[in-house]
Amino acid sequence: MPLITMTTDFGLSDGYVGAMKGVILGIVPGATIIDITHDIHPHGISDAAFVIATAAPYFPAGTVHMIVVDPGVGSERRAIAARVGEMFFVAPDNGVLTHILRPFSGESPQAEIVHLTRREYWLSQVSNTFHGRDVFAPVAAHLAAGVPLSDLGEPIDDPILLDLPQPRKRGDGILEGHVIYVDRFGNLITNIPGMWLDNSTQWQIEVAGRTIDRLCTTYADAPRGHLLALIGSAGMLELSVREGSAALTLGTGEGTKVTVRPIDQ
Amino acid sequence: MPLITMTTDFGLSDGYVGAMKGVILGIVPGATIIDITHDIHPHGISDAAFVIATAAPYFPAGTVHMIVVDPGVGSERRAIAARVGEMFFVAPDNGVLTHILRPFSGESPQAEIVHLTRREYWLSQVSNTFHGRDVFAPVAAHLAAGVPLSDLGEPIDDPILLDLPQPRKRGDGILEGHVIYVDRFGNLITNIPGMWLDNSTQWQIEVAGRTIDRLCTTYADAPRGHLLALIGSAGMLELSVREGSAALTLGTGEGTKVTVRPIDQ
Amino acid sequence: MPLITMTTDFGLSDGYVGAMKGVILGIVPGATIIDITHDIHPHGISDAAFVIATAAPYFPAGTVHMIVVDPGVGSERRAIAARVGEMFFVAPDNGVLTHILRPFSGESPQAEIVHLTRREYWLSQVSNTFHGRDVFAPVAAHLAAGVPLSDLGEPIDDPILLDLPQPRKRGDGILEGHVIYVDRFGNLITNIPGMWLDNSTQWQIEVAGRTIDRLCTTYADAPRGHLLALIGSAGMLELSVREGSAALTLGTGEGTKVTVRPIDQ
Repeated sequence: MPLITMTTDFGLSDGYVGAMKGVILGIVPGATIIDITHDIHPHGISDAAFVIATAAPYFPAGTVHMIVVDPGVGSERRAIAARVGEMFFVAPDNGVLTHILRPFSGESPQAEIVHLTRREYWLSQVSNTFHGRDVFAPVAAHLAAGVPLSDLGEPIDDPILLDLPQPRKRGDGILEGHVIYVDRFGNLITNIPGMWLDNSTQWQIEVAGRTIDRLCTTYADAPRGHLLALIGSAGMLELSVREGSAALTLGTGEGTKVTVRPIDQ
Repeated sequence: MPLITMTTDFGLSDGYVGAMKGVILGIVPGATIIDITHDIHPHGISDAAFVIATAAPYFPAGTVHMIVVDPGVGSERRAIAARVGEMFFVAPDNGVLTHILRPFSGESPQAEIVHLTRREYWLSQVSNTFHGRDVFAPVAAHLAAGVPLSDLGEPIDDPILLDLPQPRKRGDGILEGHVIYVDRFGNLITNIPGMWLDNSTQWQIEVAGRTIDRLCTTYADAPRGHLLALIGSAGMLELSVREGSAALTLGTGEGTKVTVRPIDQ
Repeated sequence: MPLITMTTDFGLSDGYVGAMKGVILGIVPGATIIDITHDIHPHGISDAAFVIATAAPYFPAGTVHMIVVDPGVGSERRAIAARVGEMFFVAPDNGVLTHILRPFSGESPQAEIVHLTRREYWLSQVSNTFHGRDVFAPVAAHLAAGVPLSDLGEPIDDPILLDLPQPRKRGDGILEGHVIYVDRFGNLITNIPGMWLDNSTQWQIEVAGRTIDRLCTTYADAPRGHLLALIGSAGMLELSVREGSAALTLGTGEGTKVTVRPIDQ
């Protein structure tokens, strides 16, 4: 049962996404195509990297994830495909696979990566501005149809990874990290793994000049409109406002520093 | 042919909806998943209740409708599943099924409702903030795959219903109701059933200080830009502006009172 | 494998699109339904005409394309279905099929068109305001299920075509055209076919008081933020700003005149 997901910055108001799906269904009739999102802000590589890393693990083995946020289309940037465990990815080589290839917590997984060079798996006519339709969609379709990854191009081992701030545990027990994603509810998602925040300890969180005295379990633990911190659904420390927006409340967003200290300090 | 619909306030810019679909397809490969909408305004329970009530009747028997507008996630609110005729619903117990369980016109249907308590039908790890992915999606998938409703939890008969204004027929023949939904075109949809407006009578409609002298059959019956009233596609009295917005023209929205009187009064 | 696409101005925040899909799946269970877009601006017939003309050719033979941008719903406007080569279309007869029936370059294709009059292929109850759900969706579903086009209504040969500006090649070699579509990235897409711009010639483009000295091959040929011209993915001359918006940079949009001259003039 071929299953392909799409994550792009094309939006849904033009015919671009439809054309890509037409190409896929011409190659694998009956494939299931799932939109992760097409509303990555234009050229938002790091947002796309976060979104695909949090959604992909919930898909069944063998799913092909196609990510097309591609400001360098038509330039010398490589197009790549990768297998990580039983997940497949097709994308420009510009860092959108960063969190797949180098997770915030845990070890980097084994990955098999190829530079897409075999034009027989592309559309016969390739435009200079829309490789989503002419290269990535047909390659994703062939991969979902069972073409081996190694047939699609030459193996590489130097994919581009984004140079993002890494969270750290200081010697004094204090955790430091940054906001790396703001969702539609205004939740501020940090790069601090939830598993670093030991349940038996009480933690105090500092962000944008505000101090939050404890970690909540769920939104409902705080009064409406109050700033709170919890381990969110991505497994990371998140800052939220119950039935409100932490981004608006704090007037801040991606890149904001977050400090977490054990309360007895 | 398992068929599941989704109605949420998650928006389409993050990875949340994608993750839910991945969970479903991991349980029922090849299921058809249809988005009703993900653009319910955050925490808009009454809008979600209206949208699912107008869309669900057009789906084939056996369809499972999943509604996740869930400001109380992680609190003590119940998660429920219901069978109403041959339609199935999975949702938080917060009133989103109000118009399904208690229609504006006609009798309340027989419904079989369970409180979701059987964790073997959920994901093995359940977050505190995203039951859409961890509880509702897997339950909807199992239901679509044929698991009997009664296996999913304990029967209940006290689902939460929204305390909404009810339309009424006064003794003098005058109909009173309220605007309960504003659609993307700015049409104001009321809770007055179209079947209350007898064809053989001429009706005058009062809303927001304006009087509309008759009921139109279609938008094209009125000049461009004119306020008009008709029985809309939901089977309810609607106020519209041809190729314009009644909401903007009247400067009004949900909750606005509407009075309809037989013309000889 | 029945495949139906949808192009509408209904937006995705209401239940309208969901209801149409429910109708389709009730008639052809397991059909694949692909959204081209639902974000045509309300009543934007010429935008819909452009979008479907650029997306449809990428779908496999036999696909049924349903276009519902229908300001005249409920009036005397005809509903039609058409076969053009191996592509099928279902739409109101208001010009949305203009670029399908009369391409900017090349000859007009043979088309078989019927006026939809056979009510046995519609829903049994037809509202006056939502033919997308009650007429177009069921007709598209029956067509995808194999009902012959000729069974759906009476043949016609006078479909409405939009009276749009046509591009022209002047005797002196100068090309004249207009911007006909602005996409989500702010790219200005003209009606000048790329094949008119001979590779061996150098071309100078004039638009909105600005002159562009050459044709680029791809966005990356110009510095960030610079206005450029290229043959876009629709095969037409496009004006773009690398990682920016040509529409905002030029302060202009649809209808703007574009002149292209061979450089030795």
